[in-house]
Parts: sequence; structure tokens; C-alpha cells
Amino acid sequence: MIAWRRVAILGTGLIGGSFAAALRARGLASEVRGFGPQSLEAHALGLVDLACVDITAAVADAELVVLAAPPSAIAPLMRAIAPHLARDALLTDMTSTKQSVVLAARAELGSAFGRFVPGHPIAGSERQGPAAAKAQLFEGARCVLCPQLETDAHALERVRQTWSAIGAKPACMTAHEHDEIFAAVSHLPHVLAFALAASLADRPDGDALLQWAGGGLRDTSRIAASSPALWADILLDNGPAVTAAGKALIERCEALLAAIAQGDRAGLEAQITHAAQWRRRLPV
Amino acid sequence: MIAWRRVAILGTGLIGGSFAAALRARGLASEVRGFGPQSLEAHALGLVDLACVDITAAVADAELVVLAAPPSAIAPLMRAIAPHLARDALLTDMTSTKQSVVLAARAELGSAFGRFVPGHPIAGSERQGPAAAKAQLFEGARCVLCPQLETDAHALERVRQTWSAIGAKPACMTAHEHDEIFAAVSHLPHVLAFALAASLADRPDGDALLQWAGGGLRDTSRIAASSPALWADILLDNGPAVTAAGKALIERCEALLAAIAQGDRAGLEAQITHAAQWRRRLPV
Repeated sequence: MIAWRRVAILGTGLIGGSFAAALRARGLASEVRGFGPQSLEAHALGLVDLACVDITAAVADAELVVLAAPPSAIAPLMRAIAPHLARDALLTDMTSTKQSVVLAARAELGSAFGRFVPGHPIAGSERQGPAAAKAQLFEGARCVLCPQLETDAHALERVRQTWSAIGAKPACMTAHEHDEIFAAVSHLPHVLAFALAASLADRPDGDALLQWAGGGLRDTSRIAASSPALWADILLDNGPAVTAAGKALIERCEALLAAIAQGDRAGLEAQITHAAQWRRRLPV
Repeated sequence: MIAWRRVAILGTGLIGGSFAAALRARGLASEVRGFGPQSLEAHALGLVDLACVDITAAVADAELVVLAAPPSAIAPLMRAIAPHLARDALLTDMTSTKQSVVLAARAELGSAFGRFVPGHPIAGSERQGPAAAKAQLFEGARCVLCPQLETDAHALERVRQTWSAIGAKPACMTAHEHDEIFAAVSHLPHVLAFALAASLADRPDGDALLQWAGGGLRDTSRIAASSPALWADILLDNGPAVTAAGKALIERCEALLAAIAQGDRAGLEAQITHAAQWRRRLPV
């Protein structure tokens, strides 16, 4: 089976911590080292074998280095580890955006760029940090990999096999495709949930509303409780695709409100039907 | 205990059917009659004792008449039943809007207006029809009652007790308060979910997006699968409050997108924090 001698996880929050736990639960790594502000907590929770205060110690002799940090932390992390990587070390990441990560890797990783496999597991939660991490997080989840022309086939294959071994379903696409798709299916829903929660918080009856929430508001706004720092980072990193998707959404919103204001029952029902038909096709 | 001899349910879909089933499961009614296009199905599913093709037969000698129909059906139903109500019959409804229902009742019910208790149980689902009905739907759910100056205290008390007896938590407010609050916590989230699903359906990659939906999109868009006819009806019925809430939401959306476009990290994070703080206060 695929087994790694030593794996370094840079960033041991929900995603990095869950990946570490999954590797250990399946016996896929002899040693998992964690680095980052939450690595002591991750160690106390049994997610990693060792918490490193020093990033060079974390990556020393690591066969696989995993960057599980917010987009804006990726370039500095790559710059810090590049001189200390083992000669054959493979690298991958778990960031929600891919074009900027590839750019950073190309600029910072030097000769290790061909051993870097850009990745993004489609799993997560509005909960954060190592306390929310769990070994089963990626079971059944899809995982996008965005190999570049320079990406070593062997590196891609080992990363792919590791995702499969922890129950995820890896698939390849270009970084541009990735960022367009996830602007639509992930980043835009976050913008919307933030806008909804903020607009309700702004109302004079904003406090009273809390007790009247039903399942609709609860679900529609769930991801508004996500980490503000992380999501500001992600949205800025994929800015052009997110703002384009946001503009299309606002136009649709305005068209629905116009139909309501004009009492245009047929037009309103046609728009809702268009939405409902698409939504009902989402796999359960 | 509160027990009704004969209850007529006009509209036996998800809400009316669940109310009927709850009455029967708790032994609160000797006979429950159903009327409406889904009453035969409701009878076949065991939700009502009897399906009536004739509305006068449904309400004849009924002690309690329950209107569980979309907003636009309420006035015609009231007009049809008013001449056939038993002398002491109490009436209530389950409609998502209240000001228009009160207006209709005032116009159509004549001397029975004082025995009408406007109501709205806060329960539901994107699923529809008697097949989705269940006796437990209202357990733990809140239920708004909007008594008018003319409302008979005894009628209010019996309707209140019936909701309590099936596990719901009744509370009173004015019809205007109700329509403002539910424009915000229910109707607006539906507009948003419809706009999101429609704007993704519009994209050239709309079909491909379906396979990449994670939990965020799934939850944010869940209620976009709701009934187009019912929701066109509700949104039109509460038009002014919904369009006002919708405008505030679009402004928030535009402010978030502007912060993203300008690369204003501090401003973006502050807006998201504002949203997250409100959302985290929602009772679980």
C-alpha cells in the first residue's frame, strides 16, 4: 500500500488536522508532524505525532509536505520551506483557490515545483480549528487536483492514491476551471450568506428575528458563521471570478424583486421554476 | 382535554395534512374531514378520516375549520364556506402571510369573523404534498397567532390549546409584525435561494456545477427546490415587505463585492464579522 515515512502538515486546523488524522487512522504515515499556530492543540487532540515550533524541523526529511493554510499564507510558507525540503519531497496543498497558489509555487518552490501537486478537497464546515477535525472528513468527498505541465507524473499519482486511500474521490481539472467553478458553487454562496446575515443584523428588529428563524433561514445562512479572516482571504484571492458571479446573482435578485413589485405572477413563477429545476438536479 | 368532534381541513398538503395527522395521532378529534385537490391522496395515506369532494359537506357541522391553502386561495375558500358554517364553528388558518388573510376574513366571513383565529405554524419543508406530511411536523415548532380586536377570547384559547396539545409553541403578535418578521426570516431567504440557483443555472457551465456542489451550496440553495406556484403566491402576497428586505440585501451584497473588487481586506473582514456574529447567535 501507499505509505509515507514522514509527512509534514503546515497548518493543522479543520482541513490539515483532518488530513493528518485520516493518514494516522489508516496507517498511511509512520510519522505526522504538525506546524502552525494550532499545532500544539492538534497534538493534544492526537491529530499529529509531533508539533514543531520550527518550520525547518517540520519539513526536515519529510517525504510529503502538505500546505493546509489560507491563500495569503501560501507564498510565505513556500518561501520559508523551499531551502529546507528533502531532495525528493513531494508537496501538495489544500487551498480553496488554485491559480494564485500555482503562481506562488512557480515563484517560490524553484526546482521542487515539478513535485508540487496543487489540490483542493471539497470538504469543510463553518466550524474551524483542530477541535472540529475528524479522520472521516474526506470520506466520499471529491478532491480536485490541478497538475501543471511540469508536474511529475509520479508525484501526481502518489498524491492521487493517498486521497483515494483516505476515502476521497480525486479528479483533475485546470486551475482556471477550478477557480471559476468554485467561485460559483462555494465562494458565491458564502457572499450571499454573509449578505443575508448582515442585512438582517442591520434591521431595527435584528435581535427579535433570531427567535423566529425556521429551517430555511437556518440553512441559507449556516455558512455565514464561517471564519471571517479565512473567508476574506479566499474571496480576495479569487476576486474577479467572485465579483463576476456576484453581479449575475444581483441581476437575478433584481429580476425577482421586479416581478414581485409589478405583481407579475407568471414571470415570477417562471423564474422560480427555472431555479427549482436546477436545484432539484443536485445529487442528494 | 381539548377534543374536537369534527374538524374540516381545507387543503391537505404538507401543512394541512400534517395538522390532520397530528390531531388524529393525539386523539384530539373524533373525525377529520379533508377537502381539496390532494384530499383523496391524504385519505389514502391515512391523514384524514374522510375526503370530501364537496366543500359544503366538508365544513357541515365542523367545530373547527382549518384553512391550509396558499394565500391567493384563502379569500375564495372563505367566500365558499361562509354560508355553510355551523353556528359556533371556530376557524383558523396556516398561511405564511397574515395581513392579507385578515383582510380577506374581514370581507368574507361576516359574523364568523370573531371566531376566526389567524395563525401560521413555523414549520415546513421544500417537500410538498400529503406524502411529505407527518404527525410530528409541529413538535417543538413555534406557531404565530394574530388575534384581532374582534377575536373571541374563547376561540383564541381553544386554538392555542390545540397547538400546544400537538407539541407546538404558540405565541401572539400583530399581523403587521408577523409579515415584517417573516419577510426577513422566511420570504427573503427564499428569494435569495431562487436567485442563487437561477444565476448558476444560467451559466454556460451550469450543468457541470451540479457535480461540484459541497455542503455550502447544498444548504444555501435547499429551499430553491420549493413549490414555484406556492412561493410566487406568498412573495406576491407580502410584496412590499419582501421588496424592502430584498433591497437592503442587494445593498449588502454590493458592499461585499465592492470590498472584494477594491482589495479592501479590513473592510471585507469587518462586514463578514458583522454577519458571522449575528449568525452565531441563532439558537441551535
